[in-house]
Amino acid sequence: MKYGHLDNKNKEFVITRPDTPTPWINYLGCDEYCALMSNTAGGYSFHRDPKDRRITRFRYNNVPVDRPGRYIYLRDEVSGDYWSATWQPVIKDQRPKTKDQKYEYECRHGMGYTIIKSKYSGISTEAAYFVPIGENIEFWALKVKNDSRKARRIKLFTYIEFCLWHADMDMTDFQYTLNIASAVNDGNLIFHQTGYAPKSGKYGLAYFGCNKKISGYDCDREAFIGPYRSESDPIAVERGKNFNSMASGGNPIASVSLTLSLKPGQTKDAVFMLGVAETKEEAKKIYKRYADEKDVYQKLYELKDYWNAYLSRYQAETPDKDVNSMVNIWNQYQCRTTFNWSRSASYYEAGIGRGMGFRDSNQDTLGVIHAIQDRVKTRIMELASNQFKNGSSHHKFFPLTKTGEKGGYSDDPLWLILSSSTYMKETGDIAFMHELVKYVDGEAEPMYIHLKRAIDFVLSEKGPNGFVLMRFADWNDCLNLGTDNDVAETTWVPELLYLGIQEFLKVAKILRKESDHEKYSAIAERVKENFNKKAWDGKWFIRGIDKHGKEVGSSRSREGGNIYLLPQAWAVMSGIADPERSKQCMDMLNEQLDTKYGIMLMSPPYKEFDEKLGAITTFAPGLKENGGIFCHSNPWAMIAETMLGRGDKAFKYYKTIMPPTKNRMADIHLTECYIYSQFITGRDNPNFGRARNSWLTGTAAWNFVAIANHILGVRPDYEGLVIDPCIPKKWKGFKVRRIFRDATYDIDVRNPKGVNKGIKSVIVDGKKISGNIIPAFKDKKAHMVRVVMG
Amino acid sequence: MKYGHLDNKNKEFVITRPDTPTPWINYLGCDEYCALMSNTAGGYSFHRDPKDRRITRFRYNNVPVDRPGRYIYLRDEVSGDYWSATWQPVIKDQRPKTKDQKYEYECRHGMGYTIIKSKYSGISTEAAYFVPIGENIEFWALKVKNDSRKARRIKLFTYIEFCLWHADMDMTDFQYTLNIASAVNDGNLIFHQTGYAPKSGKYGLAYFGCNKKISGYDCDREAFIGPYRSESDPIAVERGKNFNSMASGGNPIASVSLTLSLKPGQTKDAVFMLGVAETKEEAKKIYKRYADEKDVYQKLYELKDYWNAYLSRYQAETPDKDVNSMVNIWNQYQCRTTFNWSRSASYYEAGIGRGMGFRDSNQDTLGVIHAIQDRVKTRIMELASNQFKNGSSHHKFFPLTKTGEKGGYSDDPLWLILSSSTYMKETGDIAFMHELVKYVDGEAEPMYIHLKRAIDFVLSEKGPNGFVLMRFADWNDCLNLGTDNDVAETTWVPELLYLGIQEFLKVAKILRKESDHEKYSAIAERVKENFNKKAWDGKWFIRGIDKHGKEVGSSRSREGGNIYLLPQAWAVMSGIADPERSKQCMDMLNEQLDTKYGIMLMSPPYKEFDEKLGAITTFAPGLKENGGIFCHSNPWAMIAETMLGRGDKAFKYYKTIMPPTKNRMADIHLTECYIYSQFITGRDNPNFGRARNSWLTGTAAWNFVAIANHILGVRPDYEGLVIDPCIPKKWKGFKVRRIFRDATYDIDVRNPKGVNKGIKSVIVDGKKISGNIIPAFKDKKAHMVRVVMG
Repeated sequence: MKYGHLDNKNKEFVITRPDTPTPWINYLGCDEYCALMSNTAGGYSFHRDPKDRRITRFRYNNVPVDRPGRYIYLRDEVSGDYWSATWQPVIKDQRPKTKDQKYEYECRHGMGYTIIKSKYSGISTEAAYFVPIGENIEFWALKVKNDSRKARRIKLFTYIEFCLWHADMDMTDFQYTLNIASAVNDGNLIFHQTGYAPKSGKYGLAYFGCNKKISGYDCDREAFIGPYRSESDPIAVERGKNFNSMASGGNPIASVSLTLSLKPGQTKDAVFMLGVAETKEEAKKIYKRYADEKDVYQKLYELKDYWNAYLSRYQAETPDKDVNSMVNIWNQYQCRTTFNWSRSASYYEAGIGRGMGFRDSNQDTLGVIHAIQDRVKTRIMELASNQFKNGSSHHKFFPLTKTGEKGGYSDDPLWLILSSSTYMKETGDIAFMHELVKYVDGEAEPMYIHLKRAIDFVLSEKGPNGFVLMRFADWNDCLNLGTDNDVAETTWVPELLYLGIQEFLKVAKILRKESDHEKYSAIAERVKENFNKKAWDGKWFIRGIDKHGKEVGSSRSREGGNIYLLPQAWAVMSGIADPERSKQCMDMLNEQLDTKYGIMLMSPPYKEFDEKLGAITTFAPGLKENGGIFCHSNPWAMIAETMLGRGDKAFKYYKTIMPPTKNRMADIHLTECYIYSQFITGRDNPNFGRARNSWLTGTAAWNFVAIANHILGVRPDYEGLVIDPCIPKKWKGFKVRRIFRDATYDIDVRNPKGVNKGIKSVIVDGKKISGNIIPAFKDKKAHMVRVVMG
Repeated sequence: MKYGHLDNKNKEFVITRPDTPTPWINYLGCDEYCALMSNTAGGYSFHRDPKDRRITRFRYNNVPVDRPGRYIYLRDEVSGDYWSATWQPVIKDQRPKTKDQKYEYECRHGMGYTIIKSKYSGISTEAAYFVPIGENIEFWALKVKNDSRKARRIKLFTYIEFCLWHADMDMTDFQYTLNIASAVNDGNLIFHQTGYAPKSGKYGLAYFGCNKKISGYDCDREAFIGPYRSESDPIAVERGKNFNSMASGGNPIASVSLTLSLKPGQTKDAVFMLGVAETKEEAKKIYKRYADEKDVYQKLYELKDYWNAYLSRYQAETPDKDVNSMVNIWNQYQCRTTFNWSRSASYYEAGIGRGMGFRDSNQDTLGVIHAIQDRVKTRIMELASNQFKNGSSHHKFFPLTKTGEKGGYSDDPLWLILSSSTYMKETGDIAFMHELVKYVDGEAEPMYIHLKRAIDFVLSEKGPNGFVLMRFADWNDCLNLGTDNDVAETTWVPELLYLGIQEFLKVAKILRKESDHEKYSAIAERVKENFNKKAWDGKWFIRGIDKHGKEVGSSRSREGGNIYLLPQAWAVMSGIADPERSKQCMDMLNEQLDTKYGIMLMSPPYKEFDEKLGAITTFAPGLKENGGIFCHSNPWAMIAETMLGRGDKAFKYYKTIMPPTKNRMADIHLTECYIYSQFITGRDNPNFGRARNSWLTGTAAWNFVAIANHILGVRPDYEGLVIDPCIPKKWKGFKVRRIFRDATYDIDVRNPKGVNKGIKSVIVDGKKISGNIIPAFKDKKAHMVRVVMG
């Protein structure tokens, strides 16, 4: 069963039936205001922080699914029949007995906007939802058309449910929260004025308004919905009239109503807006600014322009149109979304506890560095300010409250090196290393020292076998070997450490820090030597050592989990393994872990709870880390394969987990077919192939790195733009347009001999160059690059 | 609009229509297993602890309201029409166009059980829900009768949704929780076997079964409900067949189905059971024990016997039948419920954060001491073990995990004196003072020393004016004067302290602790002297001092809150005030705070947030502490009035907030008309008269104390049973049967002169005694007591 298709021309995913297997969502807003928006208008909005500045309510994991949302009801004033502009929540039938009762629907998720169209009983609607650039507001711009042959009177009712700002309190402390709400009507506006207090003593203000004169309103949920009813059949809509209720305690909402009289063929507009402001005066000022819908639609065009410019910085033209869709549109879009919101708020992350991840946000920079270098720089410095003087770091932090939490993750600080070096390679801004950033617990030091301390901290955590102590976990959150001991080790963090030191050495060299270079070169060699001596079990690299000193993730492991993806892929990615073992471990990975839906994180799954292994053993087999296809880690195998020169294998892995390939199997995959999910259920579960936790995942950034930098092989380095593709043999070539350090590179790669990898010649602006590094011209001009593989 | 009526003969409240203004609930289970049960079978169950051992799920503050629950669907196998045995969740019409589609309904909330009857399309059902004494199980004993004239085939489907044990995690951490569930079918049982891990490493086991052979089952919510559906229209019921799904990840449920073939007039039984066990073997053993429904109904009769015996320990016969209903049945029942579960889990307390309250649980003992002295003794010692060596105490604690939290409440430790002295007066067990109990942070000491340390701690918290430092708050949780300072004081804690010392002095005297007696007598005098000197503002007693040294709750207060209930009522109750001021302050309370729905906690309400006053100013005017009618504090005014001898006033206050008086105004009151709510909205709110937070409130115990001990005036003291009524003048008399220290007292009070108070004569077993204290006979016999007032 298919639920939709890509529309690359408009940069939209078109959903053609509303009952997608899970809500298929979009993220509106790139600055301070964020709106999670499903294909039937479900979801919620927040300002800056989904935990402490939640604007509207959403009921997670509820039945019926995906409520409430941003609802517009339409009511025929003659028949009394009513329906929704977005299918939910009234849910009219798509295949009814009489044609006249048929509900037609289309949803277009675009770049920062979602348009939902409906047609029912001769009335067509088009609702464009979006958050304009630079404003703390969301618009619902509605067009209603009378497609019937008689004059019609259609009454509109809106509905949103306000959250009392603190999302956790809002869903747990009812004996308190149900007595603090205040929402009132004022002209065509409703103000939600419940304070943020007592925590902060600050007052919040959200407002909802309509640019047309309203004829009624409700601020109290119970009044609007009525007893033992739901959003599907609110009493106010059923009877055709708001109650003009205010909220004093209880549950504040915003419902306004107005009647449109439509001649046959006539279209009318109404714009609704939901926003946050400091004062009512400010809110009213913004409200007035958008009195005319033309000014609202203008903002939608500006939003489209913004995204066109954003995406233009990396555009590819390959023989595979799905690759083009992902690289040019959806993968970039998802990367920006994860960069914006880390893992804080999705349809699976309740927006309450996660905040911004240290490890996550460092990795997320990799997916946006080509487009927004200034923001990346700011973010990396914010991350560095979450580092402690000893080199360790918060695991997560909350920018709004400037608080953070450590969590005992052994890998966290090292990711700062990867993000920093990626930033410098993109920008050439090596002076970044001299930027001063304060520690959580200490005075400011240059970024260069931050990186050095990250390495030093991890080196200080050496375990009995010379690997790194696992502590609570490493990247593999639920493999909790070292919660209660100083014995258990990770073999993967030494790989990350080795790669981190390599990147650090390049910086040290550029900055002419000779003694550092010498010192850390020697350290890296020792890390490498120990790793190769002790982590190889004869068949592949092991995953770690448990608290009893026994191997984990070894071919000899008895409890399951004989082989893990990470140590194999990173052995190659980091360069820590020799060529022979590199090839062997990737072959073993392919043999043991690859499935038709992607590479499992480990195999076989653990069957029962094992306290020495931790939370990984609480998952059902095939789910999450316990034998699931963890999509974040799949690109590491792709990159490793490109390093081995095996472009067919790399591309096969890429294609297997690629969202558009899921479109034909949406009823198995369940989640959105235009963006990545955190994991796909592994082969040891009855639901093999089912994806979970879509949108906010490191999968986005790493797949972009895999395809853009390693498969298509156009990647920045300190000296310039490296061209080093590793593609399927059958590809005859491809093109990439890449903006890099203030110049545009039009790269045309030909593959006449049908190789996977290898450059025969590079011609830049008509002149052959030696090697495969294009200089950084920084001249704001376009440069033609012709590459021949072979 | 009325929704039901009392049935005192059966000790039931009968609800005659399902759409009560809020869910009207009951609590099933008095030991380890608790089931919150609404009049339409909504609610959830937990084992021992609602936070960490939640058995089933409930969606708080949801639309539609009150879901999910313990549902039984009935489906006519010929027509395909389906409905619910408990109205929800299918919600058939009670007033339809055709009589044959009319849904008839009755709910009877009884003592520890709830019976819901339905009749629809010729099929009658009666479902008895209860938790038997001493078992971790709930039964749903169903009878289905064919009242039509033709043979019928009715298919039953059940539905409950399991919670993944940890209620907070279950509703917040979906990226984790949706991947750990496991529920499987085994014969006529479904096992929910998701582990409690990783936190504890322990496995949980809940089971659901049917005593008849089932024909299908579902363990997976999404399979049973179907996409974009709800409990109202599950796809499995609609199509008439379970999917036989197992849960591996996702949301585990228990649905089983079976078909009943019913001849005209025929009745068939089916019993469903939901329980927790350590192992599957144990679960299967219990399941088999109840294969025959006779054994199940036997357990229901035993439960009724248990409650009849419980209630028989205090039975009154007064001229007011509502008083009789409350004293003899519902107030006692609510008292036991609050004693069992403190404030941990209600329809307003999500069962996540509150645990057992130190202050709450001490007060709750006052309402059950006449019936379960051993449990009270155990509870008081558990409370004392939450005291610290310096005399302070936890504010709340979690018995399951044996953890607690302090909260900076200035009154907490003193309540231990009131519960302890009440226990000793009831039992005569003065040796209780020698029981050794450990402190949180120190070795065991006798209870007597625990009480002394409680006093000493509060004395050490003296403020600049000689009152007691407020700290975060006192009883008035949201009056947060002293969060950030050592200046703000409470004038009410000195009253509680004074009363506490008086009770302590009685004990010291009995135990012949002369030096303590002398020392604390002098201290009490100084507390009294300072209080009277500084707390009287000329009109009434003030509430405290703010952090700027200014009066709070004074006739001179500018920001509102000019008068508070507490300092007036406790001035009298504690005996700290002289007779003249006692009378004046209670008259002022009456003038300023009394309304037609009860006495407001303070007046006038604060209008805007004021950080020096705290959370009280975050409530809308008239809600909660901000000018609401806080029912917990109303009996303090009643008791004070009885001490002033003003029985008409005391009884008027009693009647005003008494639940049965709300039956005629249920659409204003909203909550249950058979039990007390925490507060009734005050006159400064548009919703004046609306009650909130029903069931778990100190209101229960204190109203029982007010009516039983002070208005009817039959109260234990060290020397015996005191008879000291203070009643309305128009009452000609009343009777009380009271079990006290192993003897039964049949007390017949006559009021020939129509007085409020005063005893003319007391005749015990035919002999006149001097004074009004009946000796404790301890002879297991009945004694006739004839009292003449005058």
